[in-house]
Amino acid sequence: MSLLVVGSIAFDAIKTPFGERERALGGAAVHFSLAASYFTDVRVVGPVGDDFGEDEYAVLRRHGVATDDVEHVEGGKTFFWACEYEWNLNVRHTLDTQLNVFADFQPKLSEASKQVETLFLANIQPDLQREVREQTQAKLAGLDSMNFWIDSERESLERTISTVDIVLMNDDEVRMLTEQPTLLKAARQIMELGPGVVVVKQGEYGAALFTKDEFFAIPAYPLETVIDPTGAGDSFAGGLLGYLDSQGGATDAATLRRAMAYGSAVASYWVEEFGCERAADLTREQIDERFEAFRRMSVIESVPA
Amino acid sequence: MSLLVVGSIAFDAIKTPFGERERALGGAAVHFSLAASYFTDVRVVGPVGDDFGEDEYAVLRRHGVATDDVEHVEGGKTFFWACEYEWNLNVRHTLDTQLNVFADFQPKLSEASKQVETLFLANIQPDLQREVREQTQAKLAGLDSMNFWIDSERESLERTISTVDIVLMNDDEVRMLTEQPTLLKAARQIMELGPGVVVVKQGEYGAALFTKDEFFAIPAYPLETVIDPTGAGDSFAGGLLGYLDSQGGATDAATLRRAMAYGSAVASYWVEEFGCERAADLTREQIDERFEAFRRMSVIESVPA
Repeated sequence: MSLLVVGSIAFDAIKTPFGERERALGGAAVHFSLAASYFTDVRVVGPVGDDFGEDEYAVLRRHGVATDDVEHVEGGKTFFWACEYEWNLNVRHTLDTQLNVFADFQPKLSEASKQVETLFLANIQPDLQREVREQTQAKLAGLDSMNFWIDSERESLERTISTVDIVLMNDDEVRMLTEQPTLLKAARQIMELGPGVVVVKQGEYGAALFTKDEFFAIPAYPLETVIDPTGAGDSFAGGLLGYLDSQGGATDAATLRRAMAYGSAVASYWVEEFGCERAADLTREQIDERFEAFRRMSVIESVPA
Repeated sequence: MSLLVVGSIAFDAIKTPFGERERALGGAAVHFSLAASYFTDVRVVGPVGDDFGEDEYAVLRRHGVATDDVEHVEGGKTFFWACEYEWNLNVRHTLDTQLNVFADFQPKLSEASKQVETLFLANIQPDLQREVREQTQAKLAGLDSMNFWIDSERESLERTISTVDIVLMNDDEVRMLTEQPTLLKAARQIMELGPGVVVVKQGEYGAALFTKDEFFAIPAYPLETVIDPTGAGDSFAGGLLGYLDSQGGATDAATLRRAMAYGSAVASYWVEEFGCERAADLTREQIDERFEAFRRMSVIESVPA
């Protein structure tokens, strides 16, 4: 099977109480594709500038991510984002956003990219997401979005949502999009647009899964130390979609629950280092260990007779 | 077995986007004892004023809660608290707090109360919590607290924590108390004071359980409609401690996980009506149903060979 992700490729300046990086490889498409690469063949579409060099390509390629459709914009600069986290890492402040080549991004898909089985539309302008969706034959498609598009392009976003199978957004965004106070009502309202699966990312609290008949929630893996939450949500999405693609795009309840656990396992490693640095020596065996830990820590035994 | 709770008995003025109550029976000890009454014999200690009448006693007595140690302060007024919730029910504003008889509360325990097997010290001044703890022979003791005491009486609170087995607090309070950014480190630091179990309440996200060797988390039960979150945390604590008491005060991993699920099941009903009104027709069978639902919704099947 194969998985395509379309979204941002970035350099991030990140400051947390535990250190900082001036220029960390980042962007939703990077975190997603590296995370998904542990499960399936991944292709990435996104724009970069002249400052994106061999070192950065090498990170993706070492994980087997196909970068043929990374669009190099001559004379351009790569998307840049600066943020700072408070001591309570749930609180993040964006300090700077320079869209650069991302401002005029028009995704172009090669034949290979059009023929993937699974597609993930990371957070980009909803019209562009829809154009990409329509160019692929993907049997399974998911998307993420953000408050900016909910505010400014709600109608387009809702149209795009109607073309995908899985919506994967933060809880605040889900509430904002649906204007529903409970996540259950919000998820049902999103499902009425078309998708059969809604995954609500809840930061340090984990994530919740809604389908027509099912509810499932998984906590974040308990860690002594979190160094940098950047990319946690995108690596979670990458693990989740990557696992689903590796299972032939199955979305039955048991497969979805396992995908949630795999996504959470990957994300739990991601936050142990800055940006996507943890991917450098992360192995599939380590991911499987935390998957098994999630299985053990979720059991509620029945009441003794 | 039997369970004693010491804490506030109150009238609450509550406003949510879905309605309001001018004078709802409330207070941590009330929510806790009603919730715990589904599992074991419960006694309640707390002060009330002349405005606390037969109707209010009747609510407790209908649930079999022993009210002999409710202290009626002649000429006094019952603790009064007014709050308003935003559309996002996670955001609550306190509008008014009138301590009234609660300001001079000095818990007095009857012989029957001193001899309970399980004790819960709801959120009151930490010196008073410790005095109560020392007056009982309870084999299992838990406590709650709040930011106010962490700020103003940290040392006393830490001494009191060292006398109990279970600490049950909100995540923000746990962070504030320990000055640790991750809940795992925060829980370990609390356990170093003495308690073997730390339960972190996370509002709509559920709750997490930490012991020396174990981590377990349970989401809030997914509800279409939440009417009023008031008392959710206290009813959760009541269900949790009530179940543990009913199991002879066992705190092995399987019993603790079931207790978490029972607490969450009770809390999920509590928020369906204002204050503790849902208790009026809530049955143990209904609680067991949601307990079983939690069991089903928590399973992660192993990866097919």
